[in-house]
Formats: sequence, C-alpha cells, structure tokens
Amino acid sequence: MHADTRHRVVVVGGGFGGLQAALKLAKRPVEVTLVDRRNFHLFQPLAYQVATGALSPSEICYPLRTIFRGRENVDVLLAEATGFDLAERRVRLRAVAEDIPAPQYVEYDSLIVAGGSRYSYFGHDDWHAFAPELKSLEGALDIRSRILTAFEAAELEHDPERRRAWLTFVVVGAGPTGVEMAGQIAEIARDSGPEFRHAETRSAQVLLIEAAERVLTGFPPSLSARAARALGKLGVTPLLGHSVTGVEQDAVTTTSPDGSTARHPARTVVWAAGVTSSSLARELAGATGAELDRAGRLIVEEDLSLPGQPEVQALGDMVAIRREHGVETLPGLAPVAMQQGRHAAANVRARLHGRAARPFHYSDKGNLATIGRAKAVADIKGIHLSGGLAWVTWLAVHLWYLIGFQNRLLVLTRWAFSFVTHGRGARLIGAAGAQAPERD
Amino acid sequence: MHADTRHRVVVVGGGFGGLQAALKLAKRPVEVTLVDRRNFHLFQPLAYQVATGALSPSEICYPLRTIFRGRENVDVLLAEATGFDLAERRVRLRAVAEDIPAPQYVEYDSLIVAGGSRYSYFGHDDWHAFAPELKSLEGALDIRSRILTAFEAAELEHDPERRRAWLTFVVVGAGPTGVEMAGQIAEIARDSGPEFRHAETRSAQVLLIEAAERVLTGFPPSLSARAARALGKLGVTPLLGHSVTGVEQDAVTTTSPDGSTARHPARTVVWAAGVTSSSLARELAGATGAELDRAGRLIVEEDLSLPGQPEVQALGDMVAIRREHGVETLPGLAPVAMQQGRHAAANVRARLHGRAARPFHYSDKGNLATIGRAKAVADIKGIHLSGGLAWVTWLAVHLWYLIGFQNRLLVLTRWAFSFVTHGRGARLIGAAGAQAPERD
Repeated sequence: MHADTRHRVVVVGGGFGGLQAALKLAKRPVEVTLVDRRNFHLFQPLAYQVATGALSPSEICYPLRTIFRGRENVDVLLAEATGFDLAERRVRLRAVAEDIPAPQYVEYDSLIVAGGSRYSYFGHDDWHAFAPELKSLEGALDIRSRILTAFEAAELEHDPERRRAWLTFVVVGAGPTGVEMAGQIAEIARDSGPEFRHAETRSAQVLLIEAAERVLTGFPPSLSARAARALGKLGVTPLLGHSVTGVEQDAVTTTSPDGSTARHPARTVVWAAGVTSSSLARELAGATGAELDRAGRLIVEEDLSLPGQPEVQALGDMVAIRREHGVETLPGLAPVAMQQGRHAAANVRARLHGRAARPFHYSDKGNLATIGRAKAVADIKGIHLSGGLAWVTWLAVHLWYLIGFQNRLLVLTRWAFSFVTHGRGARLIGAAGAQAPERD
Repeated sequence: MHADTRHRVVVVGGGFGGLQAALKLAKRPVEVTLVDRRNFHLFQPLAYQVATGALSPSEICYPLRTIFRGRENVDVLLAEATGFDLAERRVRLRAVAEDIPAPQYVEYDSLIVAGGSRYSYFGHDDWHAFAPELKSLEGALDIRSRILTAFEAAELEHDPERRRAWLTFVVVGAGPTGVEMAGQIAEIARDSGPEFRHAETRSAQVLLIEAAERVLTGFPPSLSARAARALGKLGVTPLLGHSVTGVEQDAVTTTSPDGSTARHPARTVVWAAGVTSSSLARELAGATGAELDRAGRLIVEEDLSLPGQPEVQALGDMVAIRREHGVETLPGLAPVAMQQGRHAAANVRARLHGRAARPFHYSDKGNLATIGRAKAVADIKGIHLSGGLAWVTWLAVHLWYLIGFQNRLLVLTRWAFSFVTHGRGARLIGAAGAQAPERD
C-alpha cells in the first residue's frame, strides 16, 4: 500500500504516551507500528472505579485498532516487547500467548518506548498475591471481586472476629489512586447497608496506610489536610507515617512512627504505593549505558532521546530527564506522558526534516484528586480548590479525556445514576475470572 | 426484624424463574431466601452479545442484592445448592469459594428449585475446553477473548493454511443462540476489515453446524428458510443435517447426512447445542423418586410440585410437566421460566391460605430470534414476521425485559452506536481473565 522506503517508527506501549505519539504520527508520511501486549488502551486514572464496580471495563478501555481505524499508516501489533537490538535497530518481541503467533522482532528507523511503570511492593513480590494493584485492568477486576466477596463473606460469617476482618479494608498508599480507592470503599460500605440482612456494612473499617506524613503528597499541604478531613468524614482512617512491614492473607502488619508494630486483621488489601519502571527501562539502560535512578527510571536526555542514540526516545513514568543542573522527575500522571508522547512524535518529524530534536518541558495544567461523592481537591496553577467545584472540575476533565464519544456517554450515564441512586452497576463477582468458572 | 414463625420459602437459583418467584413473594408475609452461587442475575438471551463485544458484562448482569434492596423479607444467600434433605426440609449448601464461609444447609417450609440447564456436549465433556458455551457469563467472556484473539492471530500469521484456520469460526447448534452468534461473527468479520492491515477479515468463514434439517427448529419452516437465507447473505455457511463427531484445538469433525466425514480446520468453536438439566434435577429425582426424561429433565406434576412433595416445586428448563396424556416439554425460554416462577410463588401463597395449588399453563406470547443488523424472525401467535419489523420487535422486547432502567439506557446507547458505526465497544482480550495477567 505504501512504499517500503518510508521512515519506520516503532512505538512500544499503547498507554497515554505511546498513544499520543502514534496519533501524532498518523496520516504523516511515516510507517508507524504500535506494539502492545493488550489490544486496548486503558484509561488508567479511572481503573479504581472498575475496582469498585462503579464502571465497567469496556467503559474505560478502548480497542487500539478502533482508535487507528482509518489511520492507515499505523499498524497495531499485538505482541510483548521484551528487549532491543539497538545496533540492528530492532525491538525483540514475544507472543502474548503460547498458541498465537508473533514475529521475533520489528525493525525501526525511529523508536519511541513508553513502557510505563508498575507498583513495586517494596521488593516483596509475594505480597502481590494478597494485595492486588490498581495499574492494570486485571488488578482492578481482581480487587472488585475481592471487595464484593468480602461483604458477602461478612454476611455469611457468624464469628465476630472473622466478620470484622472481612469488614476491614486496607489501602496501601495515599496518592490520588489510594485516596480515591479508600473513599470509594467507605462509600460502598455506607451505601450497601440496606442490601445486607446480617452484616453491618456501615461498621466497616477502611485503613489508608501511608509512609509519608500526609495524604496526597503531590498536592500543597493545605489541600492534603482538607482531603484528610474529607476522608475522615467518610469513615476512612488514615495511618500516616506508617510503613507496611508484612501482608498476609488475613492481616497487614505496620510499623508506626514511634517504632511500634501493629497487626491489622483484614481480608482485603489494595496496593497503590511505590512505583517502579517497566523492565524495558532496564533493557534500554543495559543496551545504551544510560543510567537508572533509584526507582528504576531510565534517565533520558532533555529531548527524551537516549545518550548517543538520537533515534531512540523513551517517555512517561518509566523515565526521568537529565537537565543541566540535575535530574528532573515529573509526576507519573497522564498529562505528562501525553505531552511527552506528542513531543517525541514531533522530534521524529523534526529529524526527518533535518531539524534538531527539541528539549521537552512539561506544561503543568494542574493536579486533581477526588475523594468521594462531590468531594475533590484541585491545584490548578496555584489556585487551590476543594469540595464541589473541584469535583465538577474532576468530572469534566476525566470525561473530556476519555477516549471515544460512546465511552463518555456511557460513563456519564453511570455516574449520573450512581450520584442519584448511590448505587454501583458493575458489581459482578468472579466475572473477572478471579474464580474459575465451574460447570454445573 | 420479623417473627421467626413466618413461613420460610427457599428459592434456589437467581435466573429468570427463581428471580420472578422471589419478586412475587417479596413484601408478602413470608421469609424468602434466594440461593445463588453468583451475586448477579444474568440476562442470558443477550450473553452472545457479550461474546461478540457488543455489550459489556455489567450491562446484562444485575446484582441480586440491588434487585431486592428495600424488599426486606428477601434474603440473598451466596452459596451453591448441592442437594436436598426433603425429610428434614432443608437444602444442602456449599461455599462458592474455599476461603469464604457458608452455612451447611438452609431450612424451608416451601421450596422452589430453578436450577436451569447447561449445554451437554453430547457426553463429550472434553470438547468443552476447545468449544466454550454461551450459557454463562464466563463462557461468553471466554468466547469473546477467543474471537478477538483469532483475528489478531490471523493478522500475525504468515502461513496461509494456519491463517485460514484462525479465520474459520464454527458455531455448533442452530437454535436462536447459535444463529445469533453466527450472524454476529459474520458481521464482525465484515466490519473489522478496515482495522487490520494484513488479515483479510472479510474472507473469514463462519460454519453453522446443525444436526436437524433446518435452522431455528423452534420456528415454523417458512421462518427457518428466511433465517437461513439471511444468514447466507451475511456469509454464514449452514451445514444442516451434519453431526459433530469431534472437536480438537484446531479442527471440528462432522458427519454429513450421506455418512461422509469432513474435518474443518478452525481455531474458534462456539458451543450452543444440546442442553441437559442442572444436576439438581437428578438430586431431586433421587430424593423423591420422580422421573427424568432423556435430556435429564425432572418430570414434575401439573402444578410444578414433585410427586408426593406438595411443598417442593421445580421449574424452568430443568423440568418437564406430566400431563394427563403424556409429558409436556416447553421450550427453554425466559418467558416460560418467568411465568413458572410467578406461578410457583402463587402456589406457595395459595397453600398458605389453605387453597390448592393450581396447574401451570404456558401462555405463549411468541418467539423471536435475531440474525444480524436489522434482520430477525418473529412468530407471534401465528403471525410470522421477518426483516426490519421483526428486528425492531426483538430490540423492544429485549430492552423491556432487561432489568434496571440504567441497564436499558446503557444497552440502548451501545446498540445505537453499533448501528451507526458498525463498531463494538467492549472488545477486550483477556479482561475476562481467560489469560492470566502477567506482571511487567
């Protein structure tokens, strides 16, 4: 269809950054291959709403092929990128499942790597089995089944101590995701009361464990304080300055600021603390000699390229940027990745036209976090909002950025119903496949 | 809250029949316990739309607790009914998962069993692994992942023969579900063309295998003929009078009417043929001496009760009815189960008031099946419709019976978008958990 001699751009990762890069290169005289191991883009900031049953997966996921329908120079390749042969200019690939095919590699003239990050579990990968995370759709669906099952189990359990453990929910990490999650669990507990005959769901405890001294450390202290007050009113107990030292099937152990240890019996633990970069950061570091920071972020040049590899760019929360006077670490937010994705695409086009790549600068439009029904905090260019106005802003921004008009309408419908009825429509246990389907 | 001396009704199964029975007994002076191993009611006639990505699970599933919110005499019990101690008047229970609690049994004064049916695989349970079914949400999600993966694999596969197998879809059974499924797969193949760069999705083959001599045997022959023509136009190849004799990972073997055998290489097989009753039918037969018919249906009395057990009723597609002149087998449709559910509830109330239970008679409102976009057949009290008018009827009836105003609106939105854009919004591979989530 196109001449084979066109410049080949490979974009690894269909998250916010990779998607913007590929969109910006669509309908341009280049051949783009977007590699992802999922067939859909996940609107990750709303994953926690899937975890609480407020939204359905397909409302925050959009098939990549649909996004690039009609953008014929973009080829979506369902495969997992495992590494790079920079000398041969190719990305090594692996099939996403045993029985389906995949090429061994894909060749590029320009490469954009947007591999994202994952939660780190502070080096305790074994905690993952008891404390699923909120970065992936699978994690969100697993959490949904666990939360719903916990209320059902509390309904069936007669022993008061065990019932209490079923009605105790621990959220680890009080960043925006952890705060939103804790607030929503508290709301579920409050709103579900009339649906249960035996369990007192309103007596549920929600513990929000945070190693720092305040919630939402990415926000100014005054907004953190307001968020903490709003959480308290919802029935969330923030344990600030507490570190998690153990996660078991039925309890979480913490160390408090004074050094004392406590064991919190709890059957449901949600992990939203401490991120580490995609393993692709390490792969690129190994291949180029670029450095990694303490969180495993790949340190890229100011123009997002790798040292000595101008045709290779990396972006999103898997990177930090080397500036003249130190390393800049931007927050792991969608707007950062989106701006970087567009910037990387522009750099590819600049080089094609013989111009130099330009340094990236983040344009901070503001920071938002919602806590619950009609409660949010916003920090927009120094203007601090909280309460209803911040919440409406949060709603509008998230709806605006959701991909696809249909999804916006579906999500708006769900939210309107939830607001009026205090209900959540997508409360399905096991449909996540967390429990294997049984036959008759 | 209520006196313990109230009449206790246990309803087993939250499908169409059990749900109607429990709803009809809500706010009456009885104590109802609805036992289900799922926390949601599944609108099974639309499960095939989840399997094709047209709808999202939560749009056709509704949490049982929400349905009975405010109906305080109905208690939802998340557990699996495994058998019956009729002398002690109790239902034996098992927990739905290893680590969550459940009572060992629940006692009743009146019992209504609505356990449903499952596909039989003609005694070849090993075929299930290669040919998931459309009765459960898990089956539908498994099929969704397989269909979407097949197109992705065809896109990646270079070998023409293997690519052809990925682009061959076999649907076994040409009842309404099989016909609808085959039609939708053909439409996906046609509509997905612009999204793939390498696979010719329009060249996909859809084989609809049926042992009978026509499709939709529940309809008059003239409508079957019209449905077959509509299927043909969509690109579905019906193989009528063909029996499936083998299902493997990459092929289906059939025997044709003339006795010859054919092997059809195909990577995606959907099972929608031959139902057998829930194992609860066998349990009840064993406990009461009631008979089972060839398909495993429990033969109940005219009033849906069991022989010699007036306080035990069974209904839905797990039963057949003993009439004066033989056994009546009603079609396994939602309206039958719903009418029987309401009838069983009325019988419980009649007996409470010292009146006799009444025989059940099905009021046939008609039969509908859709084939594709703006194509359906309808047989309404002898009036035969096909094409656009039948399709609009089908849409209206299915929307009407969908539980919950929110679901109706969400489904209507999705359908409107699909109709205009030829797209399907819920096309997520693996979100079903069919593939285990990988970490980084």
